[in-house]
Amino acid sequence: MAETSASPTLLLKDELDIVIPTIRNLDFLEMWRPFFQPYHLIIVQDGDPSKIIKVPGGFDYEIYNRNDINRILGPKASCISFKDSACRCFGYLVSKKKYIFTIDDDCFVAKDPSGKEINALQQHIKNLLAPSTPFVFNTLYDPYREGTDFVRGYPFSLREGVPTAVSHGLWLNIPDYDAPTQLVKPLEKNTRFVDAVMTIPKGTLFPMCGMNLAFNRELIGPAMYFGLMGDGQPIGRYDDMWAGWCTKVSTLLTEHFLSLSVVCDHMGWGVKTGLPYIWHSKASNPFVNLKKEYKGIYWQEELIPFFQSAILPKDCTTVQKCYIELSKQVRAKLGKVDEYFIKLADAMVTWVEAWDELNQTGKSIEVPNGSAK
Amino acid sequence: MAETSASPTLLLKDELDIVIPTIRNLDFLEMWRPFFQPYHLIIVQDGDPSKIIKVPGGFDYEIYNRNDINRILGPKASCISFKDSACRCFGYLVSKKKYIFTIDDDCFVAKDPSGKEINALQQHIKNLLAPSTPFVFNTLYDPYREGTDFVRGYPFSLREGVPTAVSHGLWLNIPDYDAPTQLVKPLEKNTRFVDAVMTIPKGTLFPMCGMNLAFNRELIGPAMYFGLMGDGQPIGRYDDMWAGWCTKVSTLLTEHFLSLSVVCDHMGWGVKTGLPYIWHSKASNPFVNLKKEYKGIYWQEELIPFFQSAILPKDCTTVQKCYIELSKQVRAKLGKVDEYFIKLADAMVTWVEAWDELNQTGKSIEVPNGSAK
Repeated sequence: MAETSASPTLLLKDELDIVIPTIRNLDFLEMWRPFFQPYHLIIVQDGDPSKIIKVPGGFDYEIYNRNDINRILGPKASCISFKDSACRCFGYLVSKKKYIFTIDDDCFVAKDPSGKEINALQQHIKNLLAPSTPFVFNTLYDPYREGTDFVRGYPFSLREGVPTAVSHGLWLNIPDYDAPTQLVKPLEKNTRFVDAVMTIPKGTLFPMCGMNLAFNRELIGPAMYFGLMGDGQPIGRYDDMWAGWCTKVSTLLTEHFLSLSVVCDHMGWGVKTGLPYIWHSKASNPFVNLKKEYKGIYWQEELIPFFQSAILPKDCTTVQKCYIELSKQVRAKLGKVDEYFIKLADAMVTWVEAWDELNQTGKSIEVPNGSAK
Repeated sequence: MAETSASPTLLLKDELDIVIPTIRNLDFLEMWRPFFQPYHLIIVQDGDPSKIIKVPGGFDYEIYNRNDINRILGPKASCISFKDSACRCFGYLVSKKKYIFTIDDDCFVAKDPSGKEINALQQHIKNLLAPSTPFVFNTLYDPYREGTDFVRGYPFSLREGVPTAVSHGLWLNIPDYDAPTQLVKPLEKNTRFVDAVMTIPKGTLFPMCGMNLAFNRELIGPAMYFGLMGDGQPIGRYDDMWAGWCTKVSTLLTEHFLSLSVVCDHMGWGVKTGLPYIWHSKASNPFVNLKKEYKGIYWQEELIPFFQSAILPKDCTTVQKCYIELSKQVRAKLGKVDEYFIKLADAMVTWVEAWDELNQTGKSIEVPNGSAK
């Protein structure tokens, strides 16, 4: 199918925020300047709030440190992680835009096999603006991409697709491995450029990495909570996984009362993965990672079946209701695995309350630290 | 994970048959000679049985025409289509090998982006010998491929994978489009080489094309029936789709009583798609195709939900039992769509009877026309 002829970059200029969690000066933005400069940045400063984060000139940004988070959210700030990149989800909360792109500050511009620099943001926008196809797998991948289409045998009633909620991008150079795999394969690099975008089918979970991720905040924002990680918590490096599992289950929300014959009446949402690639510059310390991950590594054996069998009742007609229902199931079922999940279930509720407070009552947020423009 | 160090080509030399349905001289084999010559070919001659099919010298083959099929199967020959490439499944029936690779005679050797000729058969063998991962999607695609692995957040209990039943290869040049898409996009070519193999997740249907397909006959053979198409039938070009839907549902057979915690006790099977590419030389006539497809185009709108909701009882512990059960559901539910499906349900039963007759009772099959070696 033909791509939209209008430039997607221009289309979303005022509808997308770039969210960056960081503890250091944002020199990495220099490389992204040609692609990011037209967009607004939301920087979430982790760690010591007295530290000054330098942002290269010419960028339009707002920056929040821990003091800002505490001031804006009050007691509800407890749901935002500290000393963990999970704090990035505060940026989703305070954004007023329809779309979010979030990227780690150790991710640089990758090159495609022809040597051309990849405009990751533009590809995410393409992914988000084109529909998804979660009900039947298309063997030629994204059927909406130029030069391809639905293959023989793909039902015509499903060719309109459904709105895309999430665009999950990948990584060249350092792959997103867990600590055990890092330890076993310290030198493995990802050098394979797979030139495809695809919809992850309905009912299928995937490990969602937060390093290079975009989503439709209006559709799925309230489920994009990155959980309780880091300071004072028994676990780290599962923030994006948690958000991915919850998000995927939430896209199922409508799927549970979807039969194919009513797909046009009750829309589900899709999750895409594949392009764009970024260049992940440096592997994090596997020993530190193992300490953060080790509880997660055995907990996830129970989390995956939990999410695979989660059923959301039909009256969950908004993501918020869906997420609150999920928090109840987390408390009831995962609370038996570890008391951490009771705390997490509480935080899930707090997160949705904070979301509604900042996003539905029209309460304006004071933007600290000004913006460069 | 490391690939098997032994050459897969040598591994399966005596365990794989190449099945080719045809109505013409097999000149296309010249291009495949370096890759196919070590293997045994089963040629299923369609159409006029008095025509002599020329096979290039040096190949080891057996060839069956309609008279052979009628002689070998007797009244059960009614389940094998005539004047349609669906007749290829007769080759699956008479093979005694563990693996089948089937290819159309208008498919040639494709080249990878570096210009190197692609050994499609070898890639299929790699796909079939490596496990599948149908329970959770791995974002870096096939985790068993050299240079890649399971990503962070992938449950460790699922990293052994399950046996691969099907390897579905793709097509450069002429894509496998239906007649309406062919008519709308007469000039579209597939030029995108996507360097990936992936498992199609559990519970997800896909359009399986028979042009470039390999499978584990021991695991899934009895479900690889290509249906009633062509001469005397109201439909064509849905033979491979039918087999794909039935096969995918049959891999679910074990999934229905699979919970993640017992995955090591009760194995499911996987279906892979992606590499290898072949070069599909010529689009078939879209007007002729439309005539063959038009009933299928609206029937498939009911077939997909039928297969998506098909449940196979726990006592279906073999593919044969599974397939007979499926035939009952086809008769009961799809029989209402059109009486054709009652005939098809009967043919499904006949097919399984023929399969058991030729494959389980030890009855030897007379190989007609000799072999070149």
